[in-house]
Amino acid sequence: MSVITVERKVLERNDEIAGRNRALFAEHGTFVFNLVSSPGSGKTSVLERTLECLKDITKVAIIEGDVQTDLDAQRVAKFGVPVVQIVTHGGCHLDANLVRDALGSLDLKQVQLLVIENVGNLVCPANYDLGEAMKVVIASTTEGDDKPLKYPAMFRNAAVLIVNKIDLLPYVNCNLEALKANALSVNPALTIFETSCTTRKGIDEWCEWIVREMGTKPVA
Amino acid sequence: MSVITVERKVLERNDEIAGRNRALFAEHGTFVFNLVSSPGSGKTSVLERTLECLKDITKVAIIEGDVQTDLDAQRVAKFGVPVVQIVTHGGCHLDANLVRDALGSLDLKQVQLLVIENVGNLVCPANYDLGEAMKVVIASTTEGDDKPLKYPAMFRNAAVLIVNKIDLLPYVNCNLEALKANALSVNPALTIFETSCTTRKGIDEWCEWIVREMGTKPVA
Repeated sequence: MSVITVERKVLERNDEIAGRNRALFAEHGTFVFNLVSSPGSGKTSVLERTLECLKDITKVAIIEGDVQTDLDAQRVAKFGVPVVQIVTHGGCHLDANLVRDALGSLDLKQVQLLVIENVGNLVCPANYDLGEAMKVVIASTTEGDDKPLKYPAMFRNAAVLIVNKIDLLPYVNCNLEALKANALSVNPALTIFETSCTTRKGIDEWCEWIVREMGTKPVA
Repeated sequence: MSVITVERKVLERNDEIAGRNRALFAEHGTFVFNLVSSPGSGKTSVLERTLECLKDITKVAIIEGDVQTDLDAQRVAKFGVPVVQIVTHGGCHLDANLVRDALGSLDLKQVQLLVIENVGNLVCPANYDLGEAMKVVIASTTEGDDKPLKYPAMFRNAAVLIVNKIDLLPYVNCNLEALKANALSVNPALTIFETSCTTRKGIDEWCEWIVREMGTKPVA
């Protein structure tokens, strides 16, 4: 019995369940993204700004993943959208099985856009497919410009990078062009948005992109 | 074969090696702390400011843990202190065995203070004892004031909290008093410092505390 063998089996089993989640999403025409970042990069804030834009033109639901507390679920529940909380009780990432269980509390026929906010962790969630259409990684300018090089798996496995807190650029040691160049050196296919949840800069571009990507006419 | 059984055995084995590391540190009178935080909270910057203060009055060595790259090791090597790099190649935390291997490259007789900079991750390193005297957790004001509640294990297992980037408080959504109260609600025994690596505020207090904690006369 080796740890590596167990890890491989865990990931294989995860990928199998993720595949079934993905088939379920396809069946219902639900577009799903998996929102990942370090703790405090602004996942919930970006989600709040996104809900302000989209909740009246698209049927949105949220799955909130947290190590402890339902603080984030309370924040997004204020927007009147369905929210399911997963508390991992110390677990460092969501997995496909936890998401499958959470789906039991959602009526996917009523969900065009499902956002899964993962545990704040730039390492472990990179390896766990949840059945999403894409991973969206947030990097905050306050974290510096070297994170894509130091935590490459997450940036390699994501389709979108949101550089958040750009309003703080004058005050922090972060070169925006270097940050983007570092991210693109790891993953040249990344689509990049620059946002501030304080000034709302970049939020409309990001939300318009989601609607286009969903490939469906927004429904009232 | 269950995953939980394997995890328990991994942790038991880790604690056994950590105990041997701790005995080795005691034998040489080396004071060791394990520096943990989210990516981008300022572990390496705090370490740079700490080295400026202490490198001429104490024999310091560093073990740098990173998922990829030796960027942080290059930064601290500029201070002319011994640095050993551990690259985990995707691994989300340091463990006692990796530290034991790294110790083979250090002459502990020449080390009074050893700082182990862990992988940037507020979840997984909480569970891995490396043999250190204490964990020092850094929380950046830019991450908001709710992180101790959302990631309690790390704050519970740490002896010291450094609230870093306090120069950014006017620009971010973080109530310093709430952050400290949240941390103390999880762990009332925490010793708390407030620092800025930009203005150097709080750095002297932190370094003086280390010297006192080492319980040894600083050696020229």
